Amino acid sequence: MLTMADGLKIGIVGATGAVGQELLSLFDQRSTQISELRLMSGPRSAGSTISFRGEDLTVALAAADQFDGLDVVFFSAGAGVSKSLASAAVDAGALVVDNSSAFRMDEGVPLVIPEINWSVAGEQKIIANPNCSTIILLMAIAPLRSLGKIKRIIASTYQSVSGAGAIAMQELIDQTRVVLDGGEAVPESFGHQCAFNVFSHDSDVDGNGFNVEEQKMFEETRKILEDDEIGLSVTCVRVPVLRAHSEAILVEFEGDAPSVEEARRVLSQADGVRIVDDREANHFPMPIESGGEDDVFVGRIRKDAASSNGLWLFASGDQLRKGAALNALQIAERAFS
Amino acid sequence: MLTMADGLKIGIVGATGAVGQELLSLFDQRSTQISELRLMSGPRSAGSTISFRGEDLTVALAAADQFDGLDVVFFSAGAGVSKSLASAAVDAGALVVDNSSAFRMDEGVPLVIPEINWSVAGEQKIIANPNCSTIILLMAIAPLRSLGKIKRIIASTYQSVSGAGAIAMQELIDQTRVVLDGGEAVPESFGHQCAFNVFSHDSDVDGNGFNVEEQKMFEETRKILEDDEIGLSVTCVRVPVLRAHSEAILVEFEGDAPSVEEARRVLSQADGVRIVDDREANHFPMPIESGGEDDVFVGRIRKDAASSNGLWLFASGDQLRKGAALNALQIAERAFS
Repeated sequence: MLTMADGLKIGIVGATGAVGQELLSLFDQRSTQISELRLMSGPRSAGSTISFRGEDLTVALAAADQFDGLDVVFFSAGAGVSKSLASAAVDAGALVVDNSSAFRMDEGVPLVIPEINWSVAGEQKIIANPNCSTIILLMAIAPLRSLGKIKRIIASTYQSVSGAGAIAMQELIDQTRVVLDGGEAVPESFGHQCAFNVFSHDSDVDGNGFNVEEQKMFEETRKILEDDEIGLSVTCVRVPVLRAHSEAILVEFEGDAPSVEEARRVLSQADGVRIVDDREANHFPMPIESGGEDDVFVGRIRKDAASSNGLWLFASGDQLRKGAALNALQIAERAFS
Repeated sequence: MLTMADGLKIGIVGATGAVGQELLSLFDQRSTQISELRLMSGPRSAGSTISFRGEDLTVALAAADQFDGLDVVFFSAGAGVSKSLASAAVDAGALVVDNSSAFRMDEGVPLVIPEINWSVAGEQKIIANPNCSTIILLMAIAPLRSLGKIKRIIASTYQSVSGAGAIAMQELIDQTRVVLDGGEAVPESFGHQCAFNVFSHDSDVDGNGFNVEEQKMFEETRKILEDDEIGLSVTCVRVPVLRAHSEAILVEFEGDAPSVEEARRVLSQADGVRIVDDREANHFPMPIESGGEDDVFVGRIRKDAASSNGLWLFASGDQLRKGAALNALQIAERAFS
């Protein structure tokens, strides 16, 4: 069987976006063996050139006839593009790793965080990458299941602007300059000013008052943990941070919460988790430190003061890496191992 | 009895700080009648000049012999200064409104948010102003008690840098410029970079893992609501915002949570609360809008998805106004009404 070491034929749909660019940087960092790299995008960026390993590659217009011969195709160009093109990639014989929300809740499509539920991937030809906030939450939470059954998770997020793409990251930078210079912010990527502000997540709000990001975290958590009873109660908020999401998380167990020491031990042994929990130095997970890193940082581990079954955590992870491109690449690495 | 309309003799200890400056601006905005204004500070700012209503006032060094004849003295120069000088102000016959943490938990000292518990103020000569995060939390929560008994409050904060004073606000501005220009941030007011970052609140962390800010919110909430059984479970976090704190709040009732409509009705009738809760426009409380305003903004009112007794809110209020100077001035206004 073909493995990563043989050098894969890789396609990226959405190569010029923030996640696509992060994938290319991860290929270098992880010395991914590539025998062919086909970069694709929508009409706006098609025709542009991206330099990779000394070669200038032209970005092709993503289309159904572009997948012939590819082993794996990473989709990160939005749910619409995935829905219209993923089946063509599968028909061409490729494994599709889809970073959009298009197939996440489809019954036949595994939703995978390799450290947590690789076993469900099977021989499926489409594997979905969970939402970034879900990945960062579950990387911090899932290892704790060995210490007791989790009944409910209550979380508030501090989400970076990178979830809205490279344009939003540039907008935070440009808009911050404008505001510092006394000018007026003109929001484009979001409905509101992002510089020096905090606002409710920029996804549609349903009749019950929850936005789509919060609903995704709820549904995806249940699917990944294979637990239809687990409660999830979350508020998703954007903060003026470039590329790492943070989350304040209260985990409620069926019985008494594990001790801080037990939680720390289990988390310190978990792949992809780094403990940052120095109470004396007041040093806990921060986006300026988790940004650009592969691990999800976890700290502020403490027993809830108002219940016997609660354990608080604070997590921070790079939205573009473990929250998107890294998790997708890890899926491909396992599939071709 | 002396009333506000007679023109009070007012002292401010900490006149050059962020809260002191805010008080002066509120005097103008509220047309406070003042027959004498005595500005005081620590040695660093003593001797400086502040212009107020066309007069240049010299800031005196705060000392025990500076309070003669004053009707009210506002203290906002830290707990140490309050502890050493408040009794001298009381001895001189003044009402002390203390914005520090010095006396908040003293049994004989009322801890007052006028809209919530003015009745406890009595004839006391020292009245303590609660912590800013407590005030903003309780302004959003207290009105809901008419709809059912509150059992527990779970909150995560998004706190502005102004809580650390005017210097910290300038530091966020200067540091943001440095980072935008590719330089390295040199944190001074906080242990960590504040520009484009999020970090656990900069107060000491105890053996149970809670920081002092979280403990304050816990203790002060119980004192103000006069409920020793109410649970409070909170994570306090700083965000790169200048002057308004925001909080994601899950209120748990003894019985079923009230409906969204009931909560909205009660909150819309509450003094000092403004509802900002437009789901369709995705417009909810934001620090760039609550900053500079007197009201605490409340929105994202929705029933918890994972319990029958939970109601979510998102609140945002100006840390320097209702969180500090405005609440203190309102206390004086009621005392001399």
